[in-house]
Amino acid sequence: MLANRPPNSYDVAQAAGVSQSAVSRAFSPGRSIAKATKEKVLKAAAELGYQPNAIARSMSSARTKAVQKSGLVGVVVTQLENQFFAKIVHTLSLSLQEQGWQILLFSVESEVDVDPALFELTQYQVDGVIVLSALMSQKVAQHCRNLSTPVVVFNRYIKDLDISAVRVDNYAGGRMAADVIVDAKHQYIAHIAGIQEEQTGVDRELGFCERLRERGATLYQREVGDYTFDSGYEATQRLLNMQPRPDAIFCASDLMALGAMHAARTLFGLSIPTDLTIIGFDDVPAAAWPGHQLTTISQPIEEMGQAAVKTLVSEMENPETPASQQVFAGKMVLRSSSLSDLYAQI
Amino acid sequence: MLANRPPNSYDVAQAAGVSQSAVSRAFSPGRSIAKATKEKVLKAAAELGYQPNAIARSMSSARTKAVQKSGLVGVVVTQLENQFFAKIVHTLSLSLQEQGWQILLFSVESEVDVDPALFELTQYQVDGVIVLSALMSQKVAQHCRNLSTPVVVFNRYIKDLDISAVRVDNYAGGRMAADVIVDAKHQYIAHIAGIQEEQTGVDRELGFCERLRERGATLYQREVGDYTFDSGYEATQRLLNMQPRPDAIFCASDLMALGAMHAARTLFGLSIPTDLTIIGFDDVPAAAWPGHQLTTISQPIEEMGQAAVKTLVSEMENPETPASQQVFAGKMVLRSSSLSDLYAQI
Repeated sequence: MLANRPPNSYDVAQAAGVSQSAVSRAFSPGRSIAKATKEKVLKAAAELGYQPNAIARSMSSARTKAVQKSGLVGVVVTQLENQFFAKIVHTLSLSLQEQGWQILLFSVESEVDVDPALFELTQYQVDGVIVLSALMSQKVAQHCRNLSTPVVVFNRYIKDLDISAVRVDNYAGGRMAADVIVDAKHQYIAHIAGIQEEQTGVDRELGFCERLRERGATLYQREVGDYTFDSGYEATQRLLNMQPRPDAIFCASDLMALGAMHAARTLFGLSIPTDLTIIGFDDVPAAAWPGHQLTTISQPIEEMGQAAVKTLVSEMENPETPASQQVFAGKMVLRSSSLSDLYAQI
Repeated sequence: MLANRPPNSYDVAQAAGVSQSAVSRAFSPGRSIAKATKEKVLKAAAELGYQPNAIARSMSSARTKAVQKSGLVGVVVTQLENQFFAKIVHTLSLSLQEQGWQILLFSVESEVDVDPALFELTQYQVDGVIVLSALMSQKVAQHCRNLSTPVVVFNRYIKDLDISAVRVDNYAGGRMAADVIVDAKHQYIAHIAGIQEEQTGVDRELGFCERLRERGATLYQREVGDYTFDSGYEATQRLLNMQPRPDAIFCASDLMALGAMHAARTLFGLSIPTDLTIIGFDDVPAAAWPGHQLTTISQPIEEMGQAAVKTLVSEMENPETPASQQVFAGKMVLRSSSLSDLYAQI
């Protein structure tokens, strides 16, 4: 029985059967503690109604002041309905929570809202920010730097900005797609590119086109989308109305490739891959659905998420850490939306 | 030029061409301010490097103490990769941000992680919590009530717990699905139910089965899934191996219905809806993809999101507000995955 006073950390330690230091660690962002121990502490704390008051604590503790202000990491995302981004947010969330950080989420409507969102985030004294978007301005980057708020850009990078980035090798991914298409001896090769203002799509296209040239093939036609299903669907209508009709399309995202597939089947009655090879990029869950079986370049999201969190944590703990660029290799996932050597042999 | 001191709210007001009161409102959660004015203020503040220190302010301001502690609203979600939940989070995010609240996101792995997440959220002195999950325990609900942290459950409700909920009329939705199926004179009618521990799926099934009986039809077979694509795919394999084969399946979620569709086409070579009617629930974006054209019950997510935020804000502003249950009508969206009177007439 507790006396008639609010429960303290000693009461929680007693009830959980752990040390007082474990209770303290359970409630301190970034402190190491076994998951099972933390759960015991949280359960006991919930039962007793113990309330360590995270924010007040974060403002008074000397250690915390040196390391972080709030225990909050801001995450800015523009396309949460895209399974790819939802998966990244979920991965980052688990990885940050494991280390005691919480996510302050900004799900913004479009790329132009990224700057205001970042500025608002800094009002909440986030310890760091992860941005899933490339359209972050020099001015806001400078603002973050002035406040010593570390920023990591995920799945994108920003040319000429001295900010850490974790991304897949988009250029190499584009080259892989070109190889699959040239191996299958396609003649009329099209590309649906991504948003032109950001480097991700530009790199995917560059790798694709350079590799086509190296292999003696040429790009027959090119369209531009914005990574959404609808933009892929519409671009494919334009492509498939051409004479002669393209027999292979490499799309800069899976959602655009799925749009291409649905357009080819429902509007033109084409068989995939017999009439048309389609290749995407990202490996979202819907790419693997048995009726889609989309050939695509997968990104090691979990590794990338852990790397992003690790980089951010280093920069939060030591503001002198120089910005780093980490590039991960993508992996070609051959499924039946593409004719390939592999399938030709079967 | 500023003197050699940090910029203050007067400087920001000058630079933005607005009143000092507008600057104050721009940085106060829940205060009314025109979007354009707020953007002007944020831009000027970013350029000057103005830093109102949201958290410190929230702890010292008398008004803020009365109304909220941190400007943070916790959101707990279990299935972020489901487009339906991603869309809800995005909608809530926009609606809360518009009113000056920020989202502290807990994207948890499974329903059993909801309780620990809720407990952790209260450590951050969130002003309120929105839960997108039904498996919240009595104990944690009590914990929130002890801390006077209002909770709103979205798209679910919890029987016997005095907590506000905003949801669609699941029972009526189940009835609508039964009507479409009986109208098309199907004989072997199957259902793939959702998670049995929560009321949403139970209500959908109850409405479906009761309406079948009222119309003189019977349920031929029933399977249980967990709302995911894979669970729908697997349940459909079991159903379509039966003799006679079901000719209509109502699934408790769109993702399960899409799994059913891909299984029916790729494993059994069936035509939809000629051989098999499939109906889902939720109206996720992929339901409308031209190769799917899934008949489904859509939920008015934006209205529901606004209602959830409004309810939470009332409870945050006045802790005496009694808990409320708001039920929204779903809408039957007829597409070509179901045989129906409508299609029969064409």
